Amino acid sequence: MSALAASILSGDPRAIARGISLVENETQEGPALVRELFERSGRAFIVGVTGAPGAGKSTLVDGIVSRWRKAGRTVGVLAVDPTSPFSGGAMLGDRVRMQAHAQDAGVFIRSMATRGHLGGLARATTDAALVLDAAGKDFVAIETVGVGQDEVEIARTADVSIVVLVPGMGDEVQALKAGVMEIADIFVVNKADRDGADRAVAEIESLLGLHTYPEGQWRPAIVRTEATTGRGLDDLVEVITRFGKQSSTIDLRRRSRARTQLRAVLAARLMQQVESRVSEMDMDNLVDRIAARTLDPYTAADQVLGVSGLKGPGSQS
Amino acid sequence: MSALAASILSGDPRAIARGISLVENETQEGPALVRELFERSGRAFIVGVTGAPGAGKSTLVDGIVSRWRKAGRTVGVLAVDPTSPFSGGAMLGDRVRMQAHAQDAGVFIRSMATRGHLGGLARATTDAALVLDAAGKDFVAIETVGVGQDEVEIARTADVSIVVLVPGMGDEVQALKAGVMEIADIFVVNKADRDGADRAVAEIESLLGLHTYPEGQWRPAIVRTEATTGRGLDDLVEVITRFGKQSSTIDLRRRSRARTQLRAVLAARLMQQVESRVSEMDMDNLVDRIAARTLDPYTAADQVLGVSGLKGPGSQS
Repeated sequence: MSALAASILSGDPRAIARGISLVENETQEGPALVRELFERSGRAFIVGVTGAPGAGKSTLVDGIVSRWRKAGRTVGVLAVDPTSPFSGGAMLGDRVRMQAHAQDAGVFIRSMATRGHLGGLARATTDAALVLDAAGKDFVAIETVGVGQDEVEIARTADVSIVVLVPGMGDEVQALKAGVMEIADIFVVNKADRDGADRAVAEIESLLGLHTYPEGQWRPAIVRTEATTGRGLDDLVEVITRFGKQSSTIDLRRRSRARTQLRAVLAARLMQQVESRVSEMDMDNLVDRIAARTLDPYTAADQVLGVSGLKGPGSQS
Repeated sequence: MSALAASILSGDPRAIARGISLVENETQEGPALVRELFERSGRAFIVGVTGAPGAGKSTLVDGIVSRWRKAGRTVGVLAVDPTSPFSGGAMLGDRVRMQAHAQDAGVFIRSMATRGHLGGLARATTDAALVLDAAGKDFVAIETVGVGQDEVEIARTADVSIVVLVPGMGDEVQALKAGVMEIADIFVVNKADRDGADRAVAEIESLLGLHTYPEGQWRPAIVRTEATTGRGLDDLVEVITRFGKQSSTIDLRRRSRARTQLRAVLAARLMQQVESRVSEMDMDNLVDRIAARTLDPYTAADQVLGVSGLKGPGSQS
């Protein structure tokens, strides 16, 4: 075992930070670390928190973390920002809110921004959660800004998915609700003191009413909170704990996560192979011809696969 | 040339609808259609509109479309909803707002939801825009809900990217601004009658001040609008037109789009090959072992690539 892996397993914060940096970058060191840590992971309970901008997710996570800490549990927080593909650290402003925990060795907080290619963030987040898990954190909270497919993918890496809504965020929230419906295990109506909270709860209830939840299957819960005052947070923590006891659901979730991980790693590996076999100049030449409309991207892709030797007998064109 | 391609080129709305359905599905018929239409595309000007939920994008797009129509131009609208991976049509509610154009043969409106795998929506949107382009639409507006990486990818498929903000949407909007900074050619501060509009404009200005825009390079414009009253929309249309005259910027954008398309098609092709060569049962078995923590996803991916014959001499592990 490498010294880094050993330090991570002992819970050393500097080693954890270094480990997360390794899995964030698309080098071979990340996978090597994951291989070392993998068998020692699987104990942490991973909580995904997603929702529209301005819904108060950071404050909510802060409040949940405080309650876990009071109960003597250790926590890792990953603040994921898929909106920031070019510059890391866009969430640092939000992290300031979590300064309450900055001096607490039982809480490890890290911002993650998009690196590399599409799908890379979901893979990196999964691996970063694994590092925190292997380091012995009891809970890992993954907070994502936004409500797009990235967030759905990231939510799929969690054991439980919390979707945060606020009353009166406009008509499009209705569409969002429908979209995140399938990933939400727990709906939080935050800022529940606002006008429209009852209506929001009623709307979620009516959406839930359209589905049938067989005996033994989790029916999404709805919790009202006021994250800024802490109202409702004890309820929320209790519902999270209750969800965690549904072992059959958790097993299904972890299997689905395993599949997502495998697909993501495969996609990244295959693209690496293409890039290692086709010269930058050849790629540029194809891009020029596509841009000039003399070659379509599908025919170009066939050419790349032919040149790279990756187009075998099983392929179609 | 197929009858479908010929009908699309003649602008037949039913053929356009059929063509977009084909490129949405991950079958071989979509690529075949793109191949036929590709050389006949490249004339439309593609306008991407993105921003947070509730920012008023639909109303804004509606207003822009009206102005283009008054100028005698034909328009295609793609309303893309990356938040809805499971159920299509989540944006249909929004589309009701565009009923003003429902009887206008010069406007083609279509909602698109996520299909298939990560990255699939960006590819499908690009191909759908190409169908509208080949059908002779002068403008194609691509409206996306949300502000995640999907939207960034989709914005990259446009000739010009408009990012819509509203005053007072909470602290996280600051983070969003930083994230979408690099993709925005035009910032729209919508609902500009609200408190905080001046501050929003000043904040964008100060962000723009951090960058240097060399002579000849487009400096992102800021336009204030009130989409519901139409105030500022003439300005916005004028700025879009002005951007379209920056041919060197447009060329760069189209080259970047060509590269994105090629990568997306390659990724999809490679994954198809894996799936055609590795049985579902073998994949299930690997997933089981990952979930049981007896096999890590990187080693599993190596096994899949080995079995599928896709792991050649150029690969690393």
